[in-house]
Amino acid sequence: MSAAIDPAVVEHVTALADRARVASRRLALMSRADKDAALLRLADAVEAATPAILAGNAGDLERGRGAGMSESLQDRLRLDEARVAAVAQALRDVAALPDPVGEVVRGSTLANGLQIRQVRVPMGVIGMIYEARPNVTVDAAGLCLKSGNAVILRGGSAAAGSNHALVEAMRASLAEQGLPADAVTLLEEGGRDAARALMTARGHVDLVIPRGGADLIQTVVRESTVPVIETGIGVCHVYVDRAADLDKALAITLNAKTQRPSVCNAAESLLVHRDVAVDFLPKVLTDLAGAGVRLHVSPEVAPHADAAGAAYAIASEADFGTEWHGLELSVALVDDLDEAMDRIRRFGTGHTEAIVTEDRGAARRFTAEVDAAVVMVNASTRFTDGGEFGFGAEIGISTQKLHARGPMALPELTTTKWVVDGDGQVR
Amino acid sequence: MSAAIDPAVVEHVTALADRARVASRRLALMSRADKDAALLRLADAVEAATPAILAGNAGDLERGRGAGMSESLQDRLRLDEARVAAVAQALRDVAALPDPVGEVVRGSTLANGLQIRQVRVPMGVIGMIYEARPNVTVDAAGLCLKSGNAVILRGGSAAAGSNHALVEAMRASLAEQGLPADAVTLLEEGGRDAARALMTARGHVDLVIPRGGADLIQTVVRESTVPVIETGIGVCHVYVDRAADLDKALAITLNAKTQRPSVCNAAESLLVHRDVAVDFLPKVLTDLAGAGVRLHVSPEVAPHADAAGAAYAIASEADFGTEWHGLELSVALVDDLDEAMDRIRRFGTGHTEAIVTEDRGAARRFTAEVDAAVVMVNASTRFTDGGEFGFGAEIGISTQKLHARGPMALPELTTTKWVVDGDGQVR
Repeated sequence: MSAAIDPAVVEHVTALADRARVASRRLALMSRADKDAALLRLADAVEAATPAILAGNAGDLERGRGAGMSESLQDRLRLDEARVAAVAQALRDVAALPDPVGEVVRGSTLANGLQIRQVRVPMGVIGMIYEARPNVTVDAAGLCLKSGNAVILRGGSAAAGSNHALVEAMRASLAEQGLPADAVTLLEEGGRDAARALMTARGHVDLVIPRGGADLIQTVVRESTVPVIETGIGVCHVYVDRAADLDKALAITLNAKTQRPSVCNAAESLLVHRDVAVDFLPKVLTDLAGAGVRLHVSPEVAPHADAAGAAYAIASEADFGTEWHGLELSVALVDDLDEAMDRIRRFGTGHTEAIVTEDRGAARRFTAEVDAAVVMVNASTRFTDGGEFGFGAEIGISTQKLHARGPMALPELTTTKWVVDGDGQVR
Repeated sequence: MSAAIDPAVVEHVTALADRARVASRRLALMSRADKDAALLRLADAVEAATPAILAGNAGDLERGRGAGMSESLQDRLRLDEARVAAVAQALRDVAALPDPVGEVVRGSTLANGLQIRQVRVPMGVIGMIYEARPNVTVDAAGLCLKSGNAVILRGGSAAAGSNHALVEAMRASLAEQGLPADAVTLLEEGGRDAARALMTARGHVDLVIPRGGADLIQTVVRESTVPVIETGIGVCHVYVDRAADLDKALAITLNAKTQRPSVCNAAESLLVHRDVAVDFLPKVLTDLAGAGVRLHVSPEVAPHADAAGAAYAIASEADFGTEWHGLELSVALVDDLDEAMDRIRRFGTGHTEAIVTEDRGAARRFTAEVDAAVVMVNASTRFTDGGEFGFGAEIGISTQKLHARGPMALPELTTTKWVVDGDGQVR
């Protein structure tokens, strides 16, 4: 168990959350037109603040280099004029999306004449704890504002200067528009205790969404007393069935692994039905090797990896449960669909699982029996994405079962309220 | 922070949960017809086991009396033939309800030809931690089975003998039917550590629902690492507006307070607009006094309470946030709708809040601005109930915002899965 949180930090975070609560009441009652107008002005404000944002970002990069930050992390952190413009454009894109607030989810008139309806309403105050690129700061603010929520942002310290400048631009714009600046709050002080205070501010914060690596997410899940939506760990499989079209299997495997290997919907493990191994492995392993993918293979796959000239190692048990976050892939043979689904149960994380097959029965069983946020037949795991699904935006991909599962966008940032309209009814 | 949980208990609970997981896979694939048939046979089995159930219950009552259990608690615990028949009938009622599993919530065909659909699927393994009457044991088992979930039941120790007999009857029936008995598991050993092991069995248990008093619920919320749905604390207000029809206000106040005062949707606090106080208070306080309600009043209400011959005390600040669970009610005057909503924000628990008014504007503001699971206009707070809402059943009333809010029935015991159907699509 962890040490107690510094009471001064708790007090600070609670005060910020309570100011956010007051702001959220105003946001909850705003019309779509007013929210969209505000988002467009926020976009302009972010663009206008480009010099300050780039200055803040330059400071972050300098600190990063001093601390030995890797080139790839520096690239994720780096902003330039085009990237700031893209960040601002994302706010305009959110303005164009439909407003989930006010949607009547269901309703009826009861036998006694009571009219009941379940209506989408904002959550209230949402805490975002994240490590990623500074664009998350603006995306989260835009999605929360559009869904009528105040947001408290706890970004990674590596992006502190960038985030500060971005949030200052947005808060100044909100104030200029006569809207509560506390709709968007950056939690800058208090070190690790601040994040812990945020996730234990039950009653003050309605929802915490962690976005980042496994350590961050596990910490939030373990310590939070505020409801959490767990996002993003993906040990995704591609299972090439005995009845697979091997051309499709090849294209899907390559795409799922290499199109963007650092993200959670990339494939981490390839399972191949034993009956098609001799036909399929030479092609797929050669192409994977050609794309620079390092393989972690079961012993019986090793000769094929050898023949394909691939860089490979014999996989340990743990390798099959590893999210590589890069150009690495585990490969194993299976006897049948059942063994494939057994392995997915053991090593998968309930994110995205794909089968490649032309067999209707196998596809039906796979989609019915595999327990994951997204199950796919003959498609790349990379399609698990709010943008690809047509949501227009994404605040994360939920891998838990409560409230939201899979890509989350605006409706997932709302809750509901029952409105009961009567004429004096009693029981 | 709490002491570590006994590792042997953790191992025991994890093993039970993993057996429940295996059972849940079978349940998830059962057709509605098969589940309904199983529920009807469970109902017969419970009735057939009446002698064993009554014997178990008699033992519980004897222990209770020995430990000085109050008469009202004994009455909640007591089973007789008619009550066992009612418990069995509840399983038949659940069989008659529609099956939420398989419902397509939304779907579309993407520009690239991918067909995506979001389908309701069972949660998997649900933990119920409760203190209440033995009927909850059977209700929860029936609702979980119908929604394709395995359930681990952790009932109150006061009902241990009753729960044991009820669960044995159901498990024996499941086994006789060739269904997995581990679909319904009673967690009987391990003392307090067993409940703690259940709520921290993340990955083994998908959802924990606590039902009971505030202490139980707060413990689960604080200690659980498994996602939780918080249920049931209700400090519900009736606000009698300046524009109220005072006859409706009288009927609603009396009904909300006295029809069943021990439950969470009973009113605990009455707020009266100052302008109607002189007309309304004499009537309502007289009738409340006549119904045996003890009042906790603000000083300016005291003379009215006196005149009405009511038993009353001057209310402390804490009294206005108290869930009385009985024939007690706090009463205060307010200057206007804003002050009423301020008090509801301060003292309410987000359960059910009612306004009595004929003023359309006041009703619109109240329903828009009050943040609660259920907001009512001109209706008794007692209508917040799954049965009343037409759900046919209820597993609890959620007072949190994540996943479910208000009365929860079968759909709230499910999650969703995205099924993506392709023909070789890649990004």
